[in-house]
Amino acid sequence: MKRLILGVDPGSLHTGYGIVEGGDRGEVRHVASGRIASSPRWPQSQRLCRIYDSLAELIREHQPQAVALEEVFLATNVQSALKLGQVGGVVLLAAAHGSLPVYQYAPLVVKKAVVGYGRASKDQVQLMVGRLLDREVKDQHEADALAVGLCHLFQMPWLKAS
Amino acid sequence: MKRLILGVDPGSLHTGYGIVEGGDRGEVRHVASGRIASSPRWPQSQRLCRIYDSLAELIREHQPQAVALEEVFLATNVQSALKLGQVGGVVLLAAAHGSLPVYQYAPLVVKKAVVGYGRASKDQVQLMVGRLLDREVKDQHEADALAVGLCHLFQMPWLKAS
Repeated sequence: MKRLILGVDPGSLHTGYGIVEGGDRGEVRHVASGRIASSPRWPQSQRLCRIYDSLAELIREHQPQAVALEEVFLATNVQSALKLGQVGGVVLLAAAHGSLPVYQYAPLVVKKAVVGYGRASKDQVQLMVGRLLDREVKDQHEADALAVGLCHLFQMPWLKAS
Repeated sequence: MKRLILGVDPGSLHTGYGIVEGGDRGEVRHVASGRIASSPRWPQSQRLCRIYDSLAELIREHQPQAVALEEVFLATNVQSALKLGQVGGVVLLAAAHGSLPVYQYAPLVVKKAVVGYGRASKDQVQLMVGRLLDREVKDQHEADALAVGLCHLFQMPWLKAS
């Protein structure tokens, strides 16, 4: 059975997305990925709208079975946590409106799953994501979104067993 | 000209809403208010869904011209700021999807506008909201939502001038 996962890397300015497919024998495949860009000049509500609408469209088009997100632990302060929370809120809403379950993974778990080492650098994650999916991934947000999607696939018992 | 404002008091568990109408001569009228309740047992995405859907329905039904919100400054920690931010995010999204501008007011400004005193207690706000709208408002979240809606009406120059 093929599993399609939508990984999301929510950011207060740019949000990455990555759809990956996992097969019965542990094989993974890149389906779609990119960055939902916004401008610091836009009001926050317009940015949230852009993120929600883009994710809702991706869910309609690709029909993934679940959404995987990196848990946010660290925010430099309460104000930045509030802004990041707002983005996280519309991501959760898009998933709920699509009747999709959401799985959240700590950054350490994602890095361990993808690179094999919980303290891997952003560059190492980006490189490994590219190798695993056999393509060059240039954008950091896109790489992080693909990484959490892959992490979710790698957590699945039938994939682990392969 | 009548102005219809949707005031919202976002909370991580219950979210209050209050629709108030302001007329040319400074008169204000209660239109609708209540509390969007949720259960701590629900997953966060279900709560967010409930809040977004309820607000979207209120906007469709009453067609307010703007949304007024209390700015969140204080959160006990980053985790609670992230949760409150998630609620704020779906409130902003509901406003944006309804093409409504959002006005945010600091708690001190809301209290000053409604009670005349920036350090008023929650009970004083609740009492004054009840008096201004000529009805008993029992719920704290509902009272806070009506208060920020009234605050927005009171900021408008033609209302101030009356």
